[in-house]
Amino acid sequence: MPSQMEHTMETMMFMFPKLAGDKCYLTKENLRVLMEKELLGFLENQKDPLARDKIRQDLDQCQDGKMGFQTFLLLIDGLTITCNDSFVIHMKQKGKE
Amino acid sequence: MPSQMEHTMETMMFMFPKLAGDKCYLTKENLRVLMEKELLGFLENQKDPLARDKIRQDLDQCQDGKMGFQTFLLLIDGLTITCNDSFVIHMKQKGKE
Repeated sequence: MPSQMEHTMETMMFMFPKLAGDKCYLTKENLRVLMEKELLGFLENQKDPLARDKIRQDLDQCQDGKMGFQTFLLLIDGLTITCNDSFVIHMKQKGKE
Repeated sequence: MPSQMEHTMETMMFMFPKLAGDKCYLTKENLRVLMEKELLGFLENQKDPLARDKIRQDLDQCQDGKMGFQTFLLLIDGLTITCNDSFVIHMKQKGKE
């Protein structure tokens, strides 16, 4: 049985072809599906307007209309960092209360 | 309930403090624990010597003895890309048989 981290790596590996189909890249439409089907809870919980802007910028990395696997991983990194930053701020505020 | 991708992002977010403890960075010892506890199956299945070298290089990113969250994510990206490359080669070979 894979560990938590191995399962995480597998999910990233198989999410890409699941979205891209037979192509070796993601289109803006594929990214829209990713957002709506896979990241809806994350986006809904994102109340910080600066973080929302950052997410939009990250999604705009697909400027030429084609996003490869490595850029897809960087996109997920960017979203995870945004999410982590919000979480750290939230925990600090909670600590002050 | 989080989606597959949201769960993936959460795992990466919480794996870092789980390994680092109170510090805001990972040491070589923390990375050793990551390899032994979380990536053992992945390393054992990695039969390609070039891929093994690549993994060792990726782990050596922690040269000053401190790895921050962003570099940790890049390490996981590197391992996922190595894993994906091996998988693609394996599937192509299988297709030829």
